[in-house]
Amino acid sequence: MFKRYFPFWDKLSENEKKQMIHETRTVKYEKGLQMLHCESGCNGILIVKSGQMRTYISSEEGREITLFRVFENDVCVLSASGLMDAITFDVMIDAVEDTEVLIIPVSVCEVIMKKHPEFEAYLYRTATERFSDVLWIMQQILFLSVDRRIAQFLWDECIRNSSMTVKLTHDEIARYIGSAREVVTKVLKYFQDENILTLSRGKITIIDKEKLKSCI
Amino acid sequence: MFKRYFPFWDKLSENEKKQMIHETRTVKYEKGLQMLHCESGCNGILIVKSGQMRTYISSEEGREITLFRVFENDVCVLSASGLMDAITFDVMIDAVEDTEVLIIPVSVCEVIMKKHPEFEAYLYRTATERFSDVLWIMQQILFLSVDRRIAQFLWDECIRNSSMTVKLTHDEIARYIGSAREVVTKVLKYFQDENILTLSRGKITIIDKEKLKSCI
Repeated sequence: MFKRYFPFWDKLSENEKKQMIHETRTVKYEKGLQMLHCESGCNGILIVKSGQMRTYISSEEGREITLFRVFENDVCVLSASGLMDAITFDVMIDAVEDTEVLIIPVSVCEVIMKKHPEFEAYLYRTATERFSDVLWIMQQILFLSVDRRIAQFLWDECIRNSSMTVKLTHDEIARYIGSAREVVTKVLKYFQDENILTLSRGKITIIDKEKLKSCI
Repeated sequence: MFKRYFPFWDKLSENEKKQMIHETRTVKYEKGLQMLHCESGCNGILIVKSGQMRTYISSEEGREITLFRVFENDVCVLSASGLMDAITFDVMIDAVEDTEVLIIPVSVCEVIMKKHPEFEAYLYRTATERFSDVLWIMQQILFLSVDRRIAQFLWDECIRNSSMTVKLTHDEIARYIGSAREVVTKVLKYFQDENILTLSRGKITIIDKEKLKSCI
């Protein structure tokens, strides 16, 4: 099973493989729970079995910016930042839905990683991949106007879910794109007036996909 | 010489070491030159021998945000993004001063890296380190007010240069902190009125370091 996720798997000894499998535990997190700092904190490499997680940074005043989301069958290594001393900041991780994850604890990874530079390369490569995405998001936030960001976000959601309906509140969208709820509401109403979409409670329905795309 | 910079150096064969040394070339870039896209483009791992480089992203309208600077004896791996397919965006690199660098071309690294996962781990670890810094900067831009960012920047410059004088124009500071020149000028004038610093052409002199620190 792990072979699918970890390119370095075949380099491990049988004993090391057994150890990793043996120490891995399954944990369920309720929707909305802060996964890193709760009682059953997820200190290790995560594989999402079902549900969805969100990593974000937050300001002292509680403003949040979503860095990336982790979906079913995705691996998250930032929760194992204890393994990577090159990571010098704190991200937060929330369960966006009820989420079940496999956790491979830092402790067992630490020992095996010391013997296998491929393991270390994998961790940092995966972190770099995520940071690449983060930089793209930051670039959007800093350089793109908010209406283009919202159009881009709705477009991505439609494609990801193969659906013309986005089931998110204005507040949730604001958190994802790093803006304020009021601003999101204003832009969405403008899109509605332009016959790009219709708004109803907790739901946005795209009615003109091409027009939405032209707003990006 | 390379041993000092590359933790994986001892893992290489004598032949590989010779190859890397042999292919390395010294290139000088004039102040202000775009190092990546000029004629003697720096496509490889860079070691700064003298001078200073700046990596940044820029918007379509030409707005720039400095990601980090690379000083004497620092290594820059982002210029070798051809070696790391996990990096999926473009950064720009400028020579801030007349700058002399050693370039270890991507071509020679590519071959050696394939045999040594330690080399790959080093590259991605170094990239992650930089991205960690970048994320911190982004957090500042997004969450901190501009006056705190300017105070922080001046403070860092004083410490780095062990000097109370910062020899930069308002425009340069604006580029470093990702703001507009007008805003920087306004804040600096405010700091001058508060007797924190004095302004003269191309030069800022801190007169009350403690007060500056209290603005961060």
